[in-house]
Amino acid sequence: MSMRAVVYKGPKEVAVEEVDEPQIEHPNDVLIEITTSCICGSDLHMYEGRTAAEPGIVFGHENMGIVTEVGDGVSTLKEGDRVVAPFNVACGFCKNCEEGFTGFCTNVNPGFAGGAYGYVAMGPYKGGQAEKLRIPYADFNALKLPEGREHEDSFALLADIFPTGWHGTELAGLQPGESIAIYGAGPVGLMAAYSAKIKGASEIYVVDRVPSRLELAEKHCDATTINFEEGNPVDQIIDAHGDEVDRGVDAVGYQAIDPEKARDADDDDPYDPARENPAVVLNQLIRTVRPTGQLGIPGLYVPSDPGAPDEMSAEGRLGIDFGKLFEKGQKLGTGQCNVKDYNRELRDLIIEGRADPSFVVSHRVGLDEAPEMYEAFDKREEGVTKVLLEP
Amino acid sequence: MSMRAVVYKGPKEVAVEEVDEPQIEHPNDVLIEITTSCICGSDLHMYEGRTAAEPGIVFGHENMGIVTEVGDGVSTLKEGDRVVAPFNVACGFCKNCEEGFTGFCTNVNPGFAGGAYGYVAMGPYKGGQAEKLRIPYADFNALKLPEGREHEDSFALLADIFPTGWHGTELAGLQPGESIAIYGAGPVGLMAAYSAKIKGASEIYVVDRVPSRLELAEKHCDATTINFEEGNPVDQIIDAHGDEVDRGVDAVGYQAIDPEKARDADDDDPYDPARENPAVVLNQLIRTVRPTGQLGIPGLYVPSDPGAPDEMSAEGRLGIDFGKLFEKGQKLGTGQCNVKDYNRELRDLIIEGRADPSFVVSHRVGLDEAPEMYEAFDKREEGVTKVLLEP
Amino acid sequence: MSMRAVVYKGPKEVAVEEVDEPQIEHPNDVLIEITTSCICGSDLHMYEGRTAAEPGIVFGHENMGIVTEVGDGVSTLKEGDRVVAPFNVACGFCKNCEEGFTGFCTNVNPGFAGGAYGYVAMGPYKGGQAEKLRIPYADFNALKLPEGREHEDSFALLADIFPTGWHGTELAGLQPGESIAIYGAGPVGLMAAYSAKIKGASEIYVVDRVPSRLELAEKHCDATTINFEEGNPVDQIIDAHGDEVDRGVDAVGYQAIDPEKARDADDDDPYDPARENPAVVLNQLIRTVRPTGQLGIPGLYVPSDPGAPDEMSAEGRLGIDFGKLFEKGQKLGTGQCNVKDYNRELRDLIIEGRADPSFVVSHRVGLDEAPEMYEAFDKREEGVTKVLLEP
Amino acid sequence: MSMRAVVYKGPKEVAVEEVDEPQIEHPNDVLIEITTSCICGSDLHMYEGRTAAEPGIVFGHENMGIVTEVGDGVSTLKEGDRVVAPFNVACGFCKNCEEGFTGFCTNVNPGFAGGAYGYVAMGPYKGGQAEKLRIPYADFNALKLPEGREHEDSFALLADIFPTGWHGTELAGLQPGESIAIYGAGPVGLMAAYSAKIKGASEIYVVDRVPSRLELAEKHCDATTINFEEGNPVDQIIDAHGDEVDRGVDAVGYQAIDPEKARDADDDDPYDPARENPAVVLNQLIRTVRPTGQLGIPGLYVPSDPGAPDEMSAEGRLGIDFGKLFEKGQKLGTGQCNVKDYNRELRDLIIEGRADPSFVVSHRVGLDEAPEMYEAFDKREEGVTKVLLEP
Repeated sequence: MSMRAVVYKGPKEVAVEEVDEPQIEHPNDVLIEITTSCICGSDLHMYEGRTAAEPGIVFGHENMGIVTEVGDGVSTLKEGDRVVAPFNVACGFCKNCEEGFTGFCTNVNPGFAGGAYGYVAMGPYKGGQAEKLRIPYADFNALKLPEGREHEDSFALLADIFPTGWHGTELAGLQPGESIAIYGAGPVGLMAAYSAKIKGASEIYVVDRVPSRLELAEKHCDATTINFEEGNPVDQIIDAHGDEVDRGVDAVGYQAIDPEKARDADDDDPYDPARENPAVVLNQLIRTVRPTGQLGIPGLYVPSDPGAPDEMSAEGRLGIDFGKLFEKGQKLGTGQCNVKDYNRELRDLIIEGRADPSFVVSHRVGLDEAPEMYEAFDKREEGVTKVLLEP
Repeated sequence: MSMRAVVYKGPKEVAVEEVDEPQIEHPNDVLIEITTSCICGSDLHMYEGRTAAEPGIVFGHENMGIVTEVGDGVSTLKEGDRVVAPFNVACGFCKNCEEGFTGFCTNVNPGFAGGAYGYVAMGPYKGGQAEKLRIPYADFNALKLPEGREHEDSFALLADIFPTGWHGTELAGLQPGESIAIYGAGPVGLMAAYSAKIKGASEIYVVDRVPSRLELAEKHCDATTINFEEGNPVDQIIDAHGDEVDRGVDAVGYQAIDPEKARDADDDDPYDPARENPAVVLNQLIRTVRPTGQLGIPGLYVPSDPGAPDEMSAEGRLGIDFGKLFEKGQKLGTGQCNVKDYNRELRDLIIEGRADPSFVVSHRVGLDEAPEMYEAFDKREEGVTKVLLEP
Repeated sequence: MSMRAVVYKGPKEVAVEEVDEPQIEHPNDVLIEITTSCICGSDLHMYEGRTAAEPGIVFGHENMGIVTEVGDGVSTLKEGDRVVAPFNVACGFCKNCEEGFTGFCTNVNPGFAGGAYGYVAMGPYKGGQAEKLRIPYADFNALKLPEGREHEDSFALLADIFPTGWHGTELAGLQPGESIAIYGAGPVGLMAAYSAKIKGASEIYVVDRVPSRLELAEKHCDATTINFEEGNPVDQIIDAHGDEVDRGVDAVGYQAIDPEKARDADDDDPYDPARENPAVVLNQLIRTVRPTGQLGIPGLYVPSDPGAPDEMSAEGRLGIDFGKLFEKGQKLGTGQCNVKDYNRELRDLIIEGRADPSFVVSHRVGLDEAPEMYEAFDKREEGVTKVLLEP
Repeated sequence: MSMRAVVYKGPKEVAVEEVDEPQIEHPNDVLIEITTSCICGSDLHMYEGRTAAEPGIVFGHENMGIVTEVGDGVSTLKEGDRVVAPFNVACGFCKNCEEGFTGFCTNVNPGFAGGAYGYVAMGPYKGGQAEKLRIPYADFNALKLPEGREHEDSFALLADIFPTGWHGTELAGLQPGESIAIYGAGPVGLMAAYSAKIKGASEIYVVDRVPSRLELAEKHCDATTINFEEGNPVDQIIDAHGDEVDRGVDAVGYQAIDPEKARDADDDDPYDPARENPAVVLNQLIRTVRPTGQLGIPGLYVPSDPGAPDEMSAEGRLGIDFGKLFEKGQKLGTGQCNVKDYNRELRDLIIEGRADPSFVVSHRVGLDEAPEMYEAFDKREEGVTKVLLEP
């Protein structure tokens, strides 16, 4: 049996092709029929050829759908259940899973701590930008949702970006009543700002260069917006706040644009690596956050970057203002989100009408439109914030 | 009235000189007669000319003694009380102090978060390598001790290095039953290892190059010792443990020796800056600690180092393997110790005979011997681990 | 010099009388001119003769005003500063204060852990339902506010009930996305519900019998309201929620009305002690909250109650369903609020317009109206929720 | 196929009988051959007829052994693996399990939060005082041990009492350097005291009446021992410590002997319920622990006790000094231990030679001797602290 799926063909190219349907491979598996699968900013790292991804990968780690087949060992799921799957694949019983670090499972991807669907080096799990998906250890990895179609967009965001944004504020140690600065107003940055609002932050600053994204931050997250092309963002935040802020989140990652390098660039491709400076946001955060403050860093950094602007950062070594960080006695937390830490509570906030993260969704399209949406998203076309695929 | 004190004269030179006696300057002050003041590894940064310290500073931030005069506003201290003072000077009522960050007080050293006795840029507070000392906000800053002379050495270590070593294990998030690696077996590293033992670590690795220090770690801290001159310490630890460890502590700081650079050095001064690599320990720690693990970094890093081995690190910017740290989802905590967080409990452990950190003390000498002891300590002479001055 | 103040004359009687003005008694004192002082539900315990309070006490532990005189040892306050004082009097340097337990200071009220203004057995501190007030250890005990008159009502609530309600949710361990039930919709219960909303609770249940209070909970706290006279509140909550809730708060305390006893009462005084059952709310909470859940108990319980309905509870011994609590593996936290733990952050939320707790204020009147307001508040007259006095 | 097992026959009677061998019932099961199964103090509640247990139950919830058969869905275990099973049966993927509350699993025992082997009302799981045992969700519920026979006694204690004693100190919030009082020197109390020692408590008080148990506390846990028959234990502890202690643990539970009632008893059976007072230890703890302190209550309390000394406590309602507890602002935590929270780390401490809890074991006997050992243990015969059965 075959089905249609989004397949990576090489740098800047994906195609919708026929591939084998998934099967139950283990008693704890379930199969789902995908109702929504999202395109994620981290898919772009592969799409742009900035990873070791080989052609043939089926993309898609943000998946939800309806259970169609259930393995013999599964206890709590049955055909027809509507579920959303964390992007992490996790076993539930290794030391890391037991401690809640389901993003760093040591069983599902031998030799590495962490597995995911449809991602280079994250294990043998097919992605969900397709008609069907196999979910391993399904009792553990599938979160049940209310029947029907309600909140479809919001629930889809529980697979990754809503928990990941939330994770940023957790890594930053945000407490109610504190101030926070968030660098990056892409989907994760917007979700971090929205999380800060839900948690009762007293002030929220969001830094980006794309006006439509900053508008979303202002409108939906009650954030004060900072356009880093209009002046040094550290100075802008300290001016507005009157002091350094309590907490900071890096929702940008290693492909950060350095405005100074961008000014000197001789082409007009805003995403030319020559404009990048992978430590620029980290060093801005150190200066933005007060002594004793804390930095949450969900933005992706990698130990090997074939397209890096210089040799040192090609192997993931970045020039960080560690003397300043130490003098300020700051703490920092990194790493991909352990989605299961947060997805139940965030689901309940959505069900109760207290959270509606779907404002970040700009497009819901059929699977066949995936290639053109990848291209548009990769160019950060104005108004393309988050794309949902519906097979 | 004058008294004798250890005065900084310039790089590699201190002298014992007559200086003005301290006075009560504020109703919350007390004066103490020093019974013990220690020389600290961080004094050596000034001594070696690796800071902005100007001649004339009275050194000494690890101080204990007997109260001789009490300000009008002091509630809980009286003449004759035996006390030890945290090296931090703190007000007790600023936002940072209230949150327990007494190492980052915003009142005692205007324009900077943090004050200390006898230290460059840490405020107007004279050091205690002298006959007398003024303690500001004394109800807050002086910890009462049992009368007499018992445990004098151990109590003196409550001013800084015992809490600072403990702080390293706290910043690393060490829980009972976990494994930990500590880089550096100087006084702070030894205290970190001793703290790990008290807290019930399952395995403790201590890395250094000085055999007598490693012996102390083995004998008093039940540590497995790793000599980094005998092979890559990361590999040695992983071989011995069978895996990466749960937690790591950097008790070395920015003047770290890089064995590879040391091998190529053409002189035989083991502390020639040319042998240094300020990020070497940080990057080793990242590789030594397991995914989801945590790094505690009490070892000093500075935003400006006049004697740095290269231009980037001269302004405190270090090449850190951030891609690897992120991939492993590690957290880290930095900064000087908030001594008051720990000194009561550590005092009680000493009183009850459950802790005796005095094994780290190698010398107790008169104030007049301070110049020669500074020289010996600076050379890391075999057997000189911790020097106590007795005026 | 004399001033006017609210003085306790005996059960159910207060008078506005001339008393001595406060003086600076210690270098760390300041004096303030009161701009607002609130009547608190816990004042009613004294007012009703349900404590050991002797006539002559000046009431008032919820105080704010303008600094008029400053002791020699005070560092951060000056004449003209607008401040609000936590109801706790605390030194800032005892073991409890250092750990953040400023409601249990061991220095300010010898022989007891905890001090307060104008309250029986809480130390020699005069109350602030008067023209002036002395604030001891003022750097520690006075929180600075923006100049002017803005947010006067909301800021006044920072002295006690806003932090105390918040404390209830902290003792209950409430996390964003969780469900919570709050027993009692008096000022503290309403503030607990409002705190739960700010913190991102997914569902909030508020239990009371007074319709106007329940309306405030619904309107300002997005709460589902439960009238315990319309049926067993435990059953009502479980029915509405579909299950036990995650967390519970007791904002009622020992003078709880037991609906069953009330039904059988032969008088029509709704606050006749014969209708009370001091453990009724605790036992309801145990049944309302899920296994592994947590109970926050800011509602006052006392070790000695002269007006108790039975002998056992007269000495503070209550019949608690401990077998059930244990079976459910619940935790509970009690005790008066450590106001300083929360008042800075709550102030900042008010300043930024993200919190406006003043909806709970029903009356702002002159000092002379205090006697009649005490009477009305004591009778829980419809519409009297919180009374502010303006000297 | 049949095997021998310890079967409950009725109050004060067990027998070794032939019963059916366990089978693989679900793909996630394993079977083990028991090498050690312990008799637990909580077995005595059933043995004494103080529960709803019906004849026919196979006892034994503290089990270890060798894997003999593996279900199709099991990933990390194979035949021959040596494992110890937490007494809790847990699924690993319900909300409680995910949050670490594996003692309150909502899947394994429908209608109740929590399952266990061989215990009344804890689900359909056979006990392990037998030759073989089925372990459900085995990847989650079986902890792997090093091959061989080393540490057999210590590892067996990982099934329950070592983690349960540790849990007591966790529920009490014990931090290094703090003082703690533990009521009860039975196996759990001794393990709590031993845990406090490992964690670096500054002072440990242990209360009991059996001299041989107090001797073990002194010898192996560095505890100060308090015999409650020699005077009020609260006064004895406060006298010895000079003040109330920081933390307290109740390792006694609802069958607590009240020395005053015992004095008045007219028989000489020391365990006659007429001598019991189920709240006596709780109320002593409240007075033993300082204001702001915390009580950890692993000692069993039940919502229904057919043999209770009075009507109120027969339904689990106890007279607790709640007024005093509130005045002191204490917190408390209850409930059975979530063994998986601690068993890995405790195993590692045993392997590394840093913990050896086997001092508590007094007897290792064959299965056939179970009936006489139950009788001896039930009588608290001098020298019978912990009995291990070896089929």
